[in-house]
Amino acid sequence: MRAATVSDEQIVLVDRPDPDPGAGEVLIRVRAAGINGADILQRAGRYPAPPGAPVDIPGLELAGEVAGQGSGAQRFAEGDRVMAIVGGGGQAELAVVHERQLMPVPEGLDWAAAGGLSEVFTTAHDALFAQAGLRAGERLCVHGAAGGVGTAAVQLGRAVGAHVTATVRRQEARAAVEELGADAVLDPEGFADHGPFDVILELVGAPNLGANVKALRTGGRIAVIGIAAGAKGELNLAALMGKRASIHGSTLRARPLEEKALTARAMEREVLPLFARGTVRVPVAATFPLERAPDAYDHFTGGGKVGKVVLTTG
Amino acid sequence: MRAATVSDEQIVLVDRPDPDPGAGEVLIRVRAAGINGADILQRAGRYPAPPGAPVDIPGLELAGEVAGQGSGAQRFAEGDRVMAIVGGGGQAELAVVHERQLMPVPEGLDWAAAGGLSEVFTTAHDALFAQAGLRAGERLCVHGAAGGVGTAAVQLGRAVGAHVTATVRRQEARAAVEELGADAVLDPEGFADHGPFDVILELVGAPNLGANVKALRTGGRIAVIGIAAGAKGELNLAALMGKRASIHGSTLRARPLEEKALTARAMEREVLPLFARGTVRVPVAATFPLERAPDAYDHFTGGGKVGKVVLTTG
Repeated sequence: MRAATVSDEQIVLVDRPDPDPGAGEVLIRVRAAGINGADILQRAGRYPAPPGAPVDIPGLELAGEVAGQGSGAQRFAEGDRVMAIVGGGGQAELAVVHERQLMPVPEGLDWAAAGGLSEVFTTAHDALFAQAGLRAGERLCVHGAAGGVGTAAVQLGRAVGAHVTATVRRQEARAAVEELGADAVLDPEGFADHGPFDVILELVGAPNLGANVKALRTGGRIAVIGIAAGAKGELNLAALMGKRASIHGSTLRARPLEEKALTARAMEREVLPLFARGTVRVPVAATFPLERAPDAYDHFTGGGKVGKVVLTTG
Repeated sequence: MRAATVSDEQIVLVDRPDPDPGAGEVLIRVRAAGINGADILQRAGRYPAPPGAPVDIPGLELAGEVAGQGSGAQRFAEGDRVMAIVGGGGQAELAVVHERQLMPVPEGLDWAAAGGLSEVFTTAHDALFAQAGLRAGERLCVHGAAGGVGTAAVQLGRAVGAHVTATVRRQEARAAVEELGADAVLDPEGFADHGPFDVILELVGAPNLGANVKALRTGGRIAVIGIAAGAKGELNLAALMGKRASIHGSTLRARPLEEKALTARAMEREVLPLFARGTVRVPVAATFPLERAPDAYDHFTGGGKVGKVVLTTG
């Protein structure tokens, strides 16, 4: 099979032996695989793949058709359209995924959308609901709302009946985020005037930490899942206590199979019906054939867009 | 009635009109009322009483007998032994408390223990279980374990089957904390060697913040309810994300009646049976009659003891 690999901090296309599905695993003919920030870190040698994932093939999400099954696998049949988050290895023509991690592709979703859905929507859903416990009627602030996880979070917040304030640094990206359902889209500097917030989803980093705590409502929760702008900041514990607030840090990639499988079940129950109903969607900014993966990575890092960059095959 | 009051940063005994119980409220003939750190802050003018509590009568907990009832109050009968956390006003001969905030005094508990029970055990129970979700088999670290909330937390942790590491600055207090059931009692500096911990209860403050995050197990929780040693510290969000950890700040005093009533129901269900069974106890370091409240406050701030300082009346 052809696969994108990391070599000397470059993406290089290579031939690799086809993988074999083990017990409970499914062989997927990949049709689309989104690019995520973690892939860029892995390309730079700063985010090694977790144990069990291909060491040098990036790709945290994929969609494709079932092309074979290991012993005991039974959730899907050959030819079924499936998608998943994976620990790595998504950016190849074939991939093996445990069947408990797979989700069916919702009716009506094309390959590019399905291939760019799993990572950002699972991350956003887990952070908003499992970590921060967002409820209808609450006020949500999403920092970094023009990114992949941000656009998913804005839509999910709106879909469950929260009031959504989105902060976006790039002025030219604001209209697109507003179109996704944000009640207000603004510069990060002014966000606190739109509070107080019950939940703040932090996709930017530590520079917002102090202002976030101040902008919380009593009982508020901050979920931190992105720190590109900085990891270390001053926390005022007195303010945190006064607000009876909490800060939750999380990542998906390092979780064991059983926890990833639980996020997939939560997605099937709570999020995929929203796609089937057309309430939420995957904004796709660009697609590139797998052979042009190096260009796709450059396009991803180039910025200036709202939506996923997705590799396609076949 | 006689009451301890705050005047010019001093505790002064004064005569005040007897309070009248309103709808749903109970008049309590106070028999014992513990002193807490918040009273010391209030004496210094740094912790004003919340709305609805007597402005200048300190005292966050009390035990006594039902001496009268407002319209609609029906949970208790005249003469019943009851105890409660209150927003203030506990350190007087009489107090009015909403019946939903009251708990029955467990069989066999003397007045001093009952008067010093509510604040520290409710605070510790809420932080360990409602905030941090402590479970049997987990490793708990309690920073500041020789204080009132600390001694309660060590016992509660042990009672539910957690492994308890206690840190205590004063060497002379360690034997007493060990006797309460801590598996290990040590100097704060060395605590991380005894981790990783699933739950850390922070009763000291920000100086421990960085080491706490490092010492967490994956999925760990930090509950911050004491910050005497400092409120501001550097938080490494990358470490918090890598541990998939959370930090919870909390206070009891400012909560509305309905939330305090819920903590009282949780205490009745989960903690009072442990007193009835003798699994946990209130260490009482000293009792003073209400008239000697100024001396009791000085004894409290003098340090060098393990256990509650309690004012008694009648």
